[in-house]
Amino acid sequence: MEYRIEGVEGIPEIAPGDDLAAVIAGATTLDDGDILVVTSKIVSKAEGRIVRAADREQAITGETVRVVATRQHEGGVTRIVENRQGIIGAAAGVDASNSPEGTVLLLPVDPDASARALATGLRALTGARVGVILSDTLGRPWREGQTDIAIGAAGVHVFDDLRGQADASGKALAVTMPCVADQLAGAAELVKGKSAGVPVAVVRGLGRYVGDLDLPGARSIQRPPERDLFRQGADEAYDEGYRAGFDEAQAEGPLAE
Amino acid sequence: MEYRIEGVEGIPEIAPGDDLAAVIAGATTLDDGDILVVTSKIVSKAEGRIVRAADREQAITGETVRVVATRQHEGGVTRIVENRQGIIGAAAGVDASNSPEGTVLLLPVDPDASARALATGLRALTGARVGVILSDTLGRPWREGQTDIAIGAAGVHVFDDLRGQADASGKALAVTMPCVADQLAGAAELVKGKSAGVPVAVVRGLGRYVGDLDLPGARSIQRPPERDLFRQGADEAYDEGYRAGFDEAQAEGPLAE
Repeated sequence: MEYRIEGVEGIPEIAPGDDLAAVIAGATTLDDGDILVVTSKIVSKAEGRIVRAADREQAITGETVRVVATRQHEGGVTRIVENRQGIIGAAAGVDASNSPEGTVLLLPVDPDASARALATGLRALTGARVGVILSDTLGRPWREGQTDIAIGAAGVHVFDDLRGQADASGKALAVTMPCVADQLAGAAELVKGKSAGVPVAVVRGLGRYVGDLDLPGARSIQRPPERDLFRQGADEAYDEGYRAGFDEAQAEGPLAE
Repeated sequence: MEYRIEGVEGIPEIAPGDDLAAVIAGATTLDDGDILVVTSKIVSKAEGRIVRAADREQAITGETVRVVATRQHEGGVTRIVENRQGIIGAAAGVDASNSPEGTVLLLPVDPDASARALATGLRALTGARVGVILSDTLGRPWREGQTDIAIGAAGVHVFDDLRGQADASGKALAVTMPCVADQLAGAAELVKGKSAGVPVAVVRGLGRYVGDLDLPGARSIQRPPERDLFRQGADEAYDEGYRAGFDEAQAEGPLAE
């Protein structure tokens, strides 16, 4: 078993209103089973999700539905937040890199819908049954550096659901459900790069993960906060507990004899 | 820019004492710049890191240096812990899948050292300047499913350090440092699979990430807990705060008039 990932050369600078499907279909040849990994930044540009850099802080606040953790550092405050798309990361996905001077980019409003529109367009233009993943670059708890993950998906199985299957020694793989979409996004980053200006990669040879356009999107990867052991930063949770404990002890009044 | 990942067929069941470098060199052809991604499980087997399944709970306790979070569920308690290797995950990496009946596997004692020994052996046997990554499958906060990550590395740049470089529009990429090793581990999972019995993959075409054997290993990916906003589960941090706040209020005594 093997596959190949190619960076797609020659994608021009994208502007609001551009037809991304036509641009991508014109830059590479697509076959049944190919999976496109597209940096969400160019989708944001095509969808006109651009605001003035001066409005960055306001944009972050506007995109935030929940503050998960904050950290003071020399350069200011980092806010780890859950954004409108349900993704947890720094600055709500509002990004100044690779955006036109004086502007910042917001994430697509509905990345799964954007991926579906792109996959639909590519399938119509090329006749090839392809899948689409929209990627973004995020930090993560416990580990330094960033990895690209899937924030949108269409026509791709985002998980390889092995629950109930047997391993090579015949034992059941009770909880194993590799996140194919995140692994593909990370794999594609290795040819796209941040500084190379290559926003699209094609994965060839993993057609077994391609499926219908109505498969669950990348939203299905997000764990609901109430089921998440790390739904809040450790300092924030401690502070909340401290206040609750302090208030409770005061409400109880002096210890009874 | 493009690369290819191949699953290496024909790796036999590994037993304690087996020479993994010889086994892998015999199963595929290696060239300068190739990167091997090896499931840590077969390294554990070769190193004899096998204990009786009856001793699983004790093994988890023995491998744990810090409990990060716990969750009660129908089947018992899930412990998310930091293990001796510094990796945060469920069950301290003690794993029953793909291990001989009645046994569980512990992670290699020092995965970076194991990776270095394997890379040294492979370079000596084949004459090819290859890199080695040892992978394991882990869940993560905020997102469902698992991805393979790098728990050991040798002869590979684990990060692509872009800090200070410019993006395509000329702006500095202040904090961008993609974790190449984790992305490679995830990319390789897509050909290895859990049920396929293919524990080794070769990445061809990314020789720019291959380097000397004394490059920092995967341990350098681990963020020290004191710098980690999610060093403790939200419930655990809340409970700790609650007790501290309660005790503090009691120590202060009744409110002064």
